[in-house]
Amino acid sequence: MSSIWKNNISLSIFGQSHGAAIGMTLDGIPAGESIDMEVLQQFLSRRAPGGDENSPWATPRKESDIPEFLSGIVDGKTCGAPITAIIRNENTRAVDYAELRDVPRPGHADFTAHIKYNGFQDSAGGGHFSGRLTAALCIAGGICLQILARHGVHIGAHILSIGDIEGRGFDPVAIDVATLTKLDGMKFSVSDPPIAAKMIDRIAEVKSNNDSIGGVIECAIIGLPPGLGNPMFNGMENRLSQLVFAIPAVKGMAFGAGFEATKMLGSVHNDPFCFGESGGIKTKTNNHGGILGGITTGMPLIFRTAIKPTPSIGIEQDSISLGKKEPTKLKIKGRHDPCIVPRAVPCVIAAAAIGVLDAMEGR
Amino acid sequence: MSSIWKNNISLSIFGQSHGAAIGMTLDGIPAGESIDMEVLQQFLSRRAPGGDENSPWATPRKESDIPEFLSGIVDGKTCGAPITAIIRNENTRAVDYAELRDVPRPGHADFTAHIKYNGFQDSAGGGHFSGRLTAALCIAGGICLQILARHGVHIGAHILSIGDIEGRGFDPVAIDVATLTKLDGMKFSVSDPPIAAKMIDRIAEVKSNNDSIGGVIECAIIGLPPGLGNPMFNGMENRLSQLVFAIPAVKGMAFGAGFEATKMLGSVHNDPFCFGESGGIKTKTNNHGGILGGITTGMPLIFRTAIKPTPSIGIEQDSISLGKKEPTKLKIKGRHDPCIVPRAVPCVIAAAAIGVLDAMEGR
Amino acid sequence: MSSIWKNNISLSIFGQSHGAAIGMTLDGIPAGESIDMEVLQQFLSRRAPGGDENSPWATPRKESDIPEFLSGIVDGKTCGAPITAIIRNENTRAVDYAELRDVPRPGHADFTAHIKYNGFQDSAGGGHFSGRLTAALCIAGGICLQILARHGVHIGAHILSIGDIEGRGFDPVAIDVATLTKLDGMKFSVSDPPIAAKMIDRIAEVKSNNDSIGGVIECAIIGLPPGLGNPMFNGMENRLSQLVFAIPAVKGMAFGAGFEATKMLGSVHNDPFCFGESGGIKTKTNNHGGILGGITTGMPLIFRTAIKPTPSIGIEQDSISLGKKEPTKLKIKGRHDPCIVPRAVPCVIAAAAIGVLDAMEGR
Amino acid sequence: MSSIWKNNISLSIFGQSHGAAIGMTLDGIPAGESIDMEVLQQFLSRRAPGGDENSPWATPRKESDIPEFLSGIVDGKTCGAPITAIIRNENTRAVDYAELRDVPRPGHADFTAHIKYNGFQDSAGGGHFSGRLTAALCIAGGICLQILARHGVHIGAHILSIGDIEGRGFDPVAIDVATLTKLDGMKFSVSDPPIAAKMIDRIAEVKSNNDSIGGVIECAIIGLPPGLGNPMFNGMENRLSQLVFAIPAVKGMAFGAGFEATKMLGSVHNDPFCFGESGGIKTKTNNHGGILGGITTGMPLIFRTAIKPTPSIGIEQDSISLGKKEPTKLKIKGRHDPCIVPRAVPCVIAAAAIGVLDAMEGR
Repeated sequence: MSSIWKNNISLSIFGQSHGAAIGMTLDGIPAGESIDMEVLQQFLSRRAPGGDENSPWATPRKESDIPEFLSGIVDGKTCGAPITAIIRNENTRAVDYAELRDVPRPGHADFTAHIKYNGFQDSAGGGHFSGRLTAALCIAGGICLQILARHGVHIGAHILSIGDIEGRGFDPVAIDVATLTKLDGMKFSVSDPPIAAKMIDRIAEVKSNNDSIGGVIECAIIGLPPGLGNPMFNGMENRLSQLVFAIPAVKGMAFGAGFEATKMLGSVHNDPFCFGESGGIKTKTNNHGGILGGITTGMPLIFRTAIKPTPSIGIEQDSISLGKKEPTKLKIKGRHDPCIVPRAVPCVIAAAAIGVLDAMEGR
Repeated sequence: MSSIWKNNISLSIFGQSHGAAIGMTLDGIPAGESIDMEVLQQFLSRRAPGGDENSPWATPRKESDIPEFLSGIVDGKTCGAPITAIIRNENTRAVDYAELRDVPRPGHADFTAHIKYNGFQDSAGGGHFSGRLTAALCIAGGICLQILARHGVHIGAHILSIGDIEGRGFDPVAIDVATLTKLDGMKFSVSDPPIAAKMIDRIAEVKSNNDSIGGVIECAIIGLPPGLGNPMFNGMENRLSQLVFAIPAVKGMAFGAGFEATKMLGSVHNDPFCFGESGGIKTKTNNHGGILGGITTGMPLIFRTAIKPTPSIGIEQDSISLGKKEPTKLKIKGRHDPCIVPRAVPCVIAAAAIGVLDAMEGR
Repeated sequence: MSSIWKNNISLSIFGQSHGAAIGMTLDGIPAGESIDMEVLQQFLSRRAPGGDENSPWATPRKESDIPEFLSGIVDGKTCGAPITAIIRNENTRAVDYAELRDVPRPGHADFTAHIKYNGFQDSAGGGHFSGRLTAALCIAGGICLQILARHGVHIGAHILSIGDIEGRGFDPVAIDVATLTKLDGMKFSVSDPPIAAKMIDRIAEVKSNNDSIGGVIECAIIGLPPGLGNPMFNGMENRLSQLVFAIPAVKGMAFGAGFEATKMLGSVHNDPFCFGESGGIKTKTNNHGGILGGITTGMPLIFRTAIKPTPSIGIEQDSISLGKKEPTKLKIKGRHDPCIVPRAVPCVIAAAAIGVLDAMEGR
Repeated sequence: MSSIWKNNISLSIFGQSHGAAIGMTLDGIPAGESIDMEVLQQFLSRRAPGGDENSPWATPRKESDIPEFLSGIVDGKTCGAPITAIIRNENTRAVDYAELRDVPRPGHADFTAHIKYNGFQDSAGGGHFSGRLTAALCIAGGICLQILARHGVHIGAHILSIGDIEGRGFDPVAIDVATLTKLDGMKFSVSDPPIAAKMIDRIAEVKSNNDSIGGVIECAIIGLPPGLGNPMFNGMENRLSQLVFAIPAVKGMAFGAGFEATKMLGSVHNDPFCFGESGGIKTKTNNHGGILGGITTGMPLIFRTAIKPTPSIGIEQDSISLGKKEPTKLKIKGRHDPCIVPRAVPCVIAAAAIGVLDAMEGR
């Protein structure tokens, strides 16, 4: 009951890394919404692997990741029925995963899946816990994004930091569509070229050591009407957290000033209300990140997400043999992303889009 | 549909700050569990107001906060039916809230509630958005805590920082019951007396300026069996976030190394598996915070929560008049907590207890 | 997780027959709706006990059943927060229920509750399984009814049969507000006086034999817009069944022509579409009971509910002793309704009102 | 949010009659359960079309209906991840459905779908409302059946009546595995050959008139432990109804003595408790249909389902043109089942299996 999320809209994500296919079902989307498949494909391509010399962060493994829609869309428009799309897996169970079954990879779900599923889990490539499943999340999110844009809501995200190299955060009051759109077109979502270069260098360095590194992604949602969301358990923070933590490697969520807010005085942190140019009610600052009491204020909704370093590294690590019940060494073969932060950017956007459309449908 | 949380167990929280009563219904608790009302009351008293000279953080307003159980408990034991308890409000609508209805308090939900409920919201004392509702959360959590303890699961929390004064975090590997129990008995949950003194001084200073301050709470859950939780949307991070973000003033959640993880190399962040003294599988370090793939590893589950500064401050602030549609000044009267972090500690523990018992019931 | 229903609106029902109180929480009701407490009380009084010589069907036991509202309503209007109301129980645990704990009453939930809750269930008066809990359902339903009426939706019900004495069913095409309103004012909801007299006589006869009898209730919902509901699991039939089967003693649900439909030819059963006087699309007949594909057509929504005979009878019955593990005889003392059908009428209306408002909120 | 059912286990059904594929995702199934694909296929074949001279009830249209499993099953065993299977549609949008879009078929969801989805619904072959979707339900149910059988729970169903030709109901006390197994092997699920012959003759007669006919299906679930289910909204009746009403054409549900119970005296209807041969607690009769208070007693769980006559008939019917807003005549072309009752038998079994496994997972 965990891979199905049910709120005003519902999302089911299925598949294992090396199974026949991965996919998603999205239910509760209004009928009559046009879905531009090219735009969707462009969005999906942002998380697709396929690194080269200029993109050292991504594994060179190629995956086309073209979804096939099985239901819910007729003549390019949603028909009200659940939307299901799948992506076939090309490399199915080619490798022998016997060792991985016996020796859990540190930082991976191998061990916990083994316990929870009594050894019957699909270990190949991480099974249902694989980052590959975020392709399904991105299909759902990409659909929601197109609908939201029609309502004037835009979502974008950038890499705020890689390791200890930090970029500048969004201006939480002035962030605009142009800034977000510019980021959409980037392979490495950092507006400031010198900072981007530093980050990429850092990733290249880490990669050359067969190691990995994490980072922080900042996401902004603009054009939101005030009054979306709810108090208590279905507030915007709760809803978005529930969705974003579905992305493997996410270990933290912070809204508005987030953990920095804890160091502020109330007189500084409180955002005074004022009138905008068009007469609408705004706040002068935006430490609250667009949410008060779980409900949108109409100011940009801003949150930050902590992405841990990719657990798959080429360095030998200590682990154990589940079968022999003794310590052992593990060296993970194959090519892995030294940093999944860039590819996690569209995933965070996707999760946010689903949460926001859900809140809009709940009005 | 927002103040009712439904998973393996369900929790409904109701009431407004100045309504007749606040309360909660907890459904899905196994029958036959003894509930010690004195122990529960002791837990509730940790969040009750009633500050004095030695506890400058809390408002001197007294509230007895003794719950009346209406259902679900017979002869001191759960009977399988939903457990409902209420706390009567003593100060109901004494004050005239007309001004508050017109001038939203910065940092509060006054404005968003006004928009969402078209002006029909109960504004008195924050209504359903008031921190007072966390008393109901603590009743539910306090019940869950007692059941969890019987399964060897213990939950504790401390204040990690107040403003920029930081204490030492839990040892994520060695944190034990004794440490958590010691914290249970403290009014100001900080183990290290000099640090505690500094924090209290800081709060007293802020209070003397009619200002407020926030902080970080760290929570530890020990004795967890491995294999609790789920992948995707119902993982431990998702579940706990959904519950903890129901506490007003929470703006961030971070699990294990959290945002610090983003600065680590994979080779450092990955926690190697090993065998414990009793032969059980453990990890040598605990950057993962007891959760991999949304599922417990059996290591201490550790998370940090960002609490923003109390928005109610005695300093004059800029706001607007909703009625006159013009800027205005607001000076909040009455006595307010200059720092709600100490009183939020049991709330975070309560939310965690509910989430963990829910995961155990889902096995 | 069973006594909380969560859909577009949510309903939590709590309490045991002889506990401190019973009550309900209704969440997701729009803010700003006036709730007329007198009208609500009038509705509740329809299911209250308190029979006399002219109403032989009801136990002479008096219960005032006046709800106290704890939250969600301010100055007579909903405020958007969850609505909680309770009714105090007057006769709490006066009797010794030791025998009942040991000897399960045939037709009651005593035995199944004993198994499910391992003997920790509240047996007194049926505990959480008591028909008394329907008072809470009626509070929720009564609130929904008032809101629905403002949208032009009216719900009424009558007794279609008592034992083998059958009245005439509603005209499924022409049923109107006047007919339903007339029924609202009746203590014994049967329009046709001779039929009513026969039914009452039958009940009196059964009562004189210390026996009991069941019947069928027919419910009509008129003024519904077309397009409410959903396909599959959240269709109008599914939704209403899930709610109506929460009323103890309900053993069957049939929509439109129901079980009679199985004897019709398609050419007779199919309701041809046509235009109404005002130009709206209607059907000439209404065998479909206002629902096609789980979605309302705009025609009267009509269903029938089977109510089994009250299991509490004064006649000696065979049962067993759970403790002694041997057969035994049981003679239930006290005064019981010989026929709960008349008092179940408002309960069915209440369940229907909740389901319909839920569907309207889901648009 | 309607085509996804979420309880202890979750079921998502997707697809339209003439879309690329239909399918289902089943989540929450324990890991390590063997699924015999041949046995599953055999079960699915019971609802597949493909009538011939000896089976006049089914359309002669052939559909292979072989599911492809995309996830959740590895080496023939469940792996804990969501199970997704699809069936490709072979006849996709061959016909021109323009007329059907304009002229809603009486008794079908064409009109209600048109209203709900603002004309954007997939009309082809009934779209998401098509009976074809029950193939997906049967995949889910067939999986559950195999798991239940391992726990000693068996489910079977037979045709109780076709039109006014009635067979004999199950013996609600003595119904056994042998009887149910015998029915499993039958194409026309009626034990009594002369009755079966009469029913088939009746269907043939109706067919020759281009008309259709309905019937009643009776389902029995045996081997259930006592104590499954819940009070209130998640009782066995509520749960099974919510699932069974997802089958198009179902218009009634009755448990145990059902509507007949309303004609019984309490002294007759109440089932006395007694001890079985093995010492277990049983009831002497089984009017309660194995459920008291929403919870299983351990007696056979028995319910009856009303199936309306197939709305697609070859006789000319009155309808309207949505576009021209005028009355019109409709003659449905193509070959249709004159009676879907025989093919609905496995669908009812499937729905029951899902509901029962769900209740077992909720213990």
